[in-house]
Amino acid sequence: MHRFRSIVPRLSRSSRFRALPISTRQFSIPSNAVPLPEDSSGLLCARGGDLYHVEFEIIEPVFKIIDTTLREGEQFATTFFTTEDKRVIAQMLDDLGVEYIEVMNPLASAQTAKDCEIISSMGLKAKIASHVRCNMVDVKEAINRGITVIHMYMATSPALKKFSHGKNLREIIEAAKEAITYCKERNVEVRFSCEDTFRSDLADLLEIYSTLSEFGVDRIGLADTVGVASPLQVLDTVRRIARVVTCEIGYHTHNDTGCCIANALLALQGGVTHIDTSVLGIGERNGITPLGGFLARMYTYNAGYKSMIIERYNLRVLKPLEEYVSHCAGVDIPFNNYVTGWSAFTHKAGVHSKAVLQNPSSYEVICPDDFGVSRDIKLAHRLTGWNAVGERSTQLGLDLSESSIKEAAKFIKTLADTKKVDLEMLDKALQNVGGGRPVNYGIQG
Amino acid sequence: MHRFRSIVPRLSRSSRFRALPISTRQFSIPSNAVPLPEDSSGLLCARGGDLYHVEFEIIEPVFKIIDTTLREGEQFATTFFTTEDKRVIAQMLDDLGVEYIEVMNPLASAQTAKDCEIISSMGLKAKIASHVRCNMVDVKEAINRGITVIHMYMATSPALKKFSHGKNLREIIEAAKEAITYCKERNVEVRFSCEDTFRSDLADLLEIYSTLSEFGVDRIGLADTVGVASPLQVLDTVRRIARVVTCEIGYHTHNDTGCCIANALLALQGGVTHIDTSVLGIGERNGITPLGGFLARMYTYNAGYKSMIIERYNLRVLKPLEEYVSHCAGVDIPFNNYVTGWSAFTHKAGVHSKAVLQNPSSYEVICPDDFGVSRDIKLAHRLTGWNAVGERSTQLGLDLSESSIKEAAKFIKTLADTKKVDLEMLDKALQNVGGGRPVNYGIQG
Repeated sequence: MHRFRSIVPRLSRSSRFRALPISTRQFSIPSNAVPLPEDSSGLLCARGGDLYHVEFEIIEPVFKIIDTTLREGEQFATTFFTTEDKRVIAQMLDDLGVEYIEVMNPLASAQTAKDCEIISSMGLKAKIASHVRCNMVDVKEAINRGITVIHMYMATSPALKKFSHGKNLREIIEAAKEAITYCKERNVEVRFSCEDTFRSDLADLLEIYSTLSEFGVDRIGLADTVGVASPLQVLDTVRRIARVVTCEIGYHTHNDTGCCIANALLALQGGVTHIDTSVLGIGERNGITPLGGFLARMYTYNAGYKSMIIERYNLRVLKPLEEYVSHCAGVDIPFNNYVTGWSAFTHKAGVHSKAVLQNPSSYEVICPDDFGVSRDIKLAHRLTGWNAVGERSTQLGLDLSESSIKEAAKFIKTLADTKKVDLEMLDKALQNVGGGRPVNYGIQG
Repeated sequence: MHRFRSIVPRLSRSSRFRALPISTRQFSIPSNAVPLPEDSSGLLCARGGDLYHVEFEIIEPVFKIIDTTLREGEQFATTFFTTEDKRVIAQMLDDLGVEYIEVMNPLASAQTAKDCEIISSMGLKAKIASHVRCNMVDVKEAINRGITVIHMYMATSPALKKFSHGKNLREIIEAAKEAITYCKERNVEVRFSCEDTFRSDLADLLEIYSTLSEFGVDRIGLADTVGVASPLQVLDTVRRIARVVTCEIGYHTHNDTGCCIANALLALQGGVTHIDTSVLGIGERNGITPLGGFLARMYTYNAGYKSMIIERYNLRVLKPLEEYVSHCAGVDIPFNNYVTGWSAFTHKAGVHSKAVLQNPSSYEVICPDDFGVSRDIKLAHRLTGWNAVGERSTQLGLDLSESSIKEAAKFIKTLADTKKVDLEMLDKALQNVGGGRPVNYGIQG
């Protein structure tokens, strides 16, 4: 058995680290502890080769949302946003309360350039950012179109350096510095992102980000462009980078391996300040962090976050916004979509239904009403229970004995073994055992 | 600025901890380190109240899949599996290679009981487990129906103890012991799960799990029944529990807050051995860890896992299996579904298309061919680039100059500003700038 100890490294941004009261235990050093180095944050290998450990400081997430439906979302397979589509989506995003709206590179096409001007002049509360390549042509064009936040990117992974721009580390930094200088001279907020961050060399990342932070970039961006980063890799990488910069940090992640929402939270816990989202998650391939799912995650982080999310964002805009974007993109909202999917608040098993009928928080961590959606308790199927059926009889105003309720439940379970049954059949069964009293079918089951 | 050090606590199951070679750095203790206690694994509060840290051992995930489409999936809002549906799904799951197939409690209905017997007697390689309440009536009925693996559950969260069974800690343990004894006497594998684990009291969990592990239960189960656990909470809770048991550990998680796949990986990294999945993730509310997404996550964990996943599972069964289940459940496969969603391998932006045409791994971490699905590179839209258009001209066998290609690209971008364009239009544009040579429209774009 190997033991070892470690220390938390010096943090360059301690003011951003806030306490969550987890433990008040007393400390003592065991005599057989094995020391770890001062720079031992992150993944560490144990001596002896049979285990290793990870050590992290966790910070209370502080975040702003950069919604990129109008940029990453336009890169989704079937989207073709008209100018009117863009105006409506931007307005709804602003109504919901996202802090940034990212739009296309105006050089994408002539109409795209005009659209950048139109969105920029809508007078929204949200800042409008344009996502451009890290070169002067793109940056100048965006600023000329009225853009006040520049999001530049350049690939730094070996695969993309080779197959994309072909520049070396020094050339990347110089290109970024030139563009940053241009932006800062014009009071334009500027972010620089290393594309494919999590397949890039960590030493390269640290050099680029620390150099640009010192140079005065407002924000650096970490991008899991291919959606491959594992959760602890995100936390570890973010923390290492957060230690060498003093600027804001953005995080953008694709969902190829299903970790985008969890990884966004871990990025925040590691020191990231801005999260990229899109409506329904639409973007290249199977998309990025969905706005609704991210809100659901932060809403449930703890009671304080729940209050903050409800206060800061107009959550009831989410569903119509998703419906509008799904229409523009020509896709259906997935049945299992976060919060707004039609099955998200459906309860079926007898034990679940019984408990939810008494107290929704038994099996719900989000109050559907906060998002303007509704609950659906399925009672008519073979997995139903007599307690749930009894609650239905109460809803119908029937005064049935336990044995009558059990008889109705047994009848519906037997019937449901042979075919799909519906609420009307259950109500009929209850009515029959109840002696033929009228049933109000208008009541929601 | 606060500094502190800590040690990795003694592990009760060190044989399961394997090394990943991350670092070979030398160790030293800084003079101003603040000590942490011997039992300091997991979340720790710093002295001074301005930060805290987390320390974990991470193990190389070792896992078996318990697919519960025929149990959790039957609890999905619209599912009604006929006996034939169940036989087909069980056979396909077995063909794919999942290690366990979980079915309903035979007491759910008469036909369900018959179906348990039928699935159990199919002679599948996978073990057939039945998910029952922790009581002797349910356990006996399942074993009488030929079931050889019992998955029992009982709620332990304050909310569910009150609104579900009403038992106290001692009564829960006694009920479990009686059922475990019954199973072990009949050579039946048995798992006990605390429902709503992550809203349960940790002291209760440690007492229940350690007691039952010592008593001889084959596997304990951790269940994020309401989908609320945050990633580090999962890792921390799993590690604390793994330290006090010697049995296998299962993990089951709902996706209400979008973390089910990431949390499954973190659970494995903390010491869990079995992961519950369902096809398309169908289950109560918006479902649980999807089988396809979980496979995608483990396939991309590293090169070794990729080989192992390809060798162990017949990945090409995934898509027809999902199609069958989506048909049974009456739902469409979401456009953005992991691996098999129609957009999962679609590339659109010019820079992406150019790179993927040269080397797919530029923007893909999964080889679609391993799952029997195909790539789609969208070239005809206003975000296209002249490099990508040039690749298309090569596919068509056209020998165009750079200026001709740029002319065609400009034409299609301008056209695409006003309406949706398609590949045929792009090909026509290339043909026109190329002098009217014939185009083979059969080539895939």
